[in-house]
Amino acid sequence: MGGVTDEREARALLSRIAEPGDRRIGRLLRTAGAADVVAMIRAGRAGLEQDERYRVRLATADPGADLARVAAVGGRLLVPGDLEWPTQLDDLGDVAPWALWVRGTVDLRLAALRSVAVVGARASTGYGTHVASTFASDLAMSGWTVVSGGAFGIDAAAHAGALAARGVTVAVLACGVDVAYPPRHDALFARIAADGLIVSEVPPGAAPHRTRFLVRNRVIAALTRGTVVVEAALRSGALSTAHEAERLGRPVLGVPGPVTSAMSQGVHRALRAGAVLVTSADEVVEAVGGLGVDLAPEPSGPVRPRDALDPLSARVLDAVPARRPATLDSVARTAGVTPAETAAALGLLELSGFVRQGPQGWALASGAPR
Amino acid sequence: MGGVTDEREARALLSRIAEPGDRRIGRLLRTAGAADVVAMIRAGRAGLEQDERYRVRLATADPGADLARVAAVGGRLLVPGDLEWPTQLDDLGDVAPWALWVRGTVDLRLAALRSVAVVGARASTGYGTHVASTFASDLAMSGWTVVSGGAFGIDAAAHAGALAARGVTVAVLACGVDVAYPPRHDALFARIAADGLIVSEVPPGAAPHRTRFLVRNRVIAALTRGTVVVEAALRSGALSTAHEAERLGRPVLGVPGPVTSAMSQGVHRALRAGAVLVTSADEVVEAVGGLGVDLAPEPSGPVRPRDALDPLSARVLDAVPARRPATLDSVARTAGVTPAETAAALGLLELSGFVRQGPQGWALASGAPR
Repeated sequence: MGGVTDEREARALLSRIAEPGDRRIGRLLRTAGAADVVAMIRAGRAGLEQDERYRVRLATADPGADLARVAAVGGRLLVPGDLEWPTQLDDLGDVAPWALWVRGTVDLRLAALRSVAVVGARASTGYGTHVASTFASDLAMSGWTVVSGGAFGIDAAAHAGALAARGVTVAVLACGVDVAYPPRHDALFARIAADGLIVSEVPPGAAPHRTRFLVRNRVIAALTRGTVVVEAALRSGALSTAHEAERLGRPVLGVPGPVTSAMSQGVHRALRAGAVLVTSADEVVEAVGGLGVDLAPEPSGPVRPRDALDPLSARVLDAVPARRPATLDSVARTAGVTPAETAAALGLLELSGFVRQGPQGWALASGAPR
Repeated sequence: MGGVTDEREARALLSRIAEPGDRRIGRLLRTAGAADVVAMIRAGRAGLEQDERYRVRLATADPGADLARVAAVGGRLLVPGDLEWPTQLDDLGDVAPWALWVRGTVDLRLAALRSVAVVGARASTGYGTHVASTFASDLAMSGWTVVSGGAFGIDAAAHAGALAARGVTVAVLACGVDVAYPPRHDALFARIAADGLIVSEVPPGAAPHRTRFLVRNRVIAALTRGTVVVEAALRSGALSTAHEAERLGRPVLGVPGPVTSAMSQGVHRALRAGAVLVTSADEVVEAVGGLGVDLAPEPSGPVRPRDALDPLSARVLDAVPARRPATLDSVARTAGVTPAETAAALGLLELSGFVRQGPQGWALASGAPR
């Protein structure tokens, strides 16, 4: 196939030929455009050990087909700079995702603003499944988005709990957003895509390689304000999500269980090492909620972030920059509404925890406390 | 009856007429002898609100009869200054016990040197009972003395576990050491008295008043190097023992359980407030063991403190002062053995965690880390 010049297509192509979390590609993308990086790989000038392997994949990669394929299942590709891009992923530095394939109706950036990872063992006990589902329901009822993987056990229970409360749930997969893995989760993924989001760094149709699960965990940790481990044996993969969260300065929370249960041993070890013990969704919110959110009256029912906003507020929110604060006038100009309308909308958005006002102006309240 | 002049009889009398933990009596005893305090109460000059009530009790008090009564059940009265007096109780200051009635064959001071309180709810679950019994057995197997109350539930399970491992267990009661309360614990108390100790601040035959249970808890906390709460509802009395331990600077430890269990809610709250989460007896020992003890090779089986000592070591240990360190020569003189024999015995006693050597000489290793 020929060269790509479009940045979005180039990032789609990179997700097809390179493995997620490739630190050298992350570094190249700091100074070069994705199309240039693709050209460097093609020419063998990228200095990557995997150059050869990535070049082999180049021969059959077709980003246009991948983009059409994700669109066919109601999905899209997000890249940094998009309004929907969750900028907290930039905290991952060189291993930040360079693109995300998403499937579903919800706005990822808004959903992730108030989100918590609920993770744990595949071989969960009845107790763990019950707790994961209850916590997720209660979080959803308080307007929090639940983020997890797509595995049996705690992951599935968390999604089911959030969905039962008509909340937003996000599954971050290690395979393509159109791949049902494990296959028995076909129906669950369809429900998540209908009411929430399925997210992946790898393109449609991609298989869940073993290493991709671990690499995927950093996305779950970075998207959310904190990670709750519900059940985990001593060597559980769920603990890797907790370690990623800790590395990012996000709170790590653990649900205790019987000391006689192997499925609680990993959690207890994390709690002894400094994780915060939580016994309810309220305590989770207390631990991960930002200052503005804590002071805000909690919504009384499940809130789908974008649904909850009137059109004017949604328009103003889209105009608030993610990082550098902007003045009220600047936000008003970007949104194309009057300063008075902007001020009123920003006040409501601040109360709901979407934005925060600092000395330099308004910004998204997306970051976890560092 | 006439006036008492003997200090021990006077303290026996005080335990009959005054309530344990009476702060004003504690203060008087700092500067006056117990016989003088009794005389002041008798004369209405003690400045105690309870003067009148205490004087009423004086009319029928008979310390000689109480001492005979405790002797009849194989017991004795301990007062500060006795070799067997556990000097760590002095940490309680004005509310330190002024006498302890004890029943059993073990030396209280030696037993309490390496002791842990294992406490919890009366209405324990099968899980809590199992954990209390297992922890106590394992502690006993490692040469640690278990201290608890005499109630159903966690207290009873802890004693039973320690006894099953042929270890030393100490029950601190809110009634006389010859009173079986609850009555169904008659046989348990007999076993504890045979292999361990029953301890009380109130004289033989005294009933367990409601307030005495709470006051008793400070003795459990002060005797031991740390307190483990196995199960406790949110308003459980077991938490008062934990608060006393915290006030004394002793470690407070908690065993987690299911967040769905009301009997673990009090423990989880304590853990969220800073108590140390423990999942095994090893972790308890790690948290409460002093420096010398941690470095010492752990005994490989249950150790009855006095049993474990050869006659020479026991004699040398008796000569080691509790607080102000003494030189080797001074210990040798007090013990009446040669300095060389004393040095050898002290070395062994230090390895076993009984004594410690500081720059000023040798002292008992009885204090918890402050």
